Amino acid sequence: MKARVIVTLKSGVLDPQGKAIEGALRGLAIDGLKSVRQGKIFDIEIDGEDHAAARRRLAEACERLLANTIVENYAIEIG
Amino acid sequence: MKARVIVTLKSGVLDPQGKAIEGALRGLAIDGLKSVRQGKIFDIEIDGEDHAAARRRLAEACERLLANTIVENYAIEIG
Repeated sequence: MKARVIVTLKSGVLDPQGKAIEGALRGLAIDGLKSVRQGKIFDIEIDGEDHAAARRRLAEACERLLANTIVENYAIEIG
Repeated sequence: MKARVIVTLKSGVLDPQGKAIEGALRGLAIDGLKSVRQGKIFDIEIDGEDHAAARRRLAEACERLLANTIVENYAIEIG
């Protein structure tokens, strides 16, 4: 089974990397972009077909390793 | 208008970062994960409401800055 975990900065948390990308795009004359925020994704291949169990396992992975839940949100997409 | 750009490694391209995460998760006794591949997302706020124009602008941004199209694929989601 395939799953995708998306980790993004919480709103309000400064994102200097996103700001740098914004500036670089403006430098390339690609305009009309109001803001850029960068996040991470993890494409994960999971054993078994039990969606609920997979979601629990992925939530544990997020809480313990993939996301810093003080400043980041995570979303789990399965299927 | 909000858009999300997802940049992932092409299949066949080695992902040592993903492998390291896989190993770390195994070390935390979170098992049943067959493979992990890491990618990037960009949450972008765009001026205007013209979806086709926004998609063109984002494709240009991907080709010129956000993705290395030799080893990475990109996907644009608008709306």
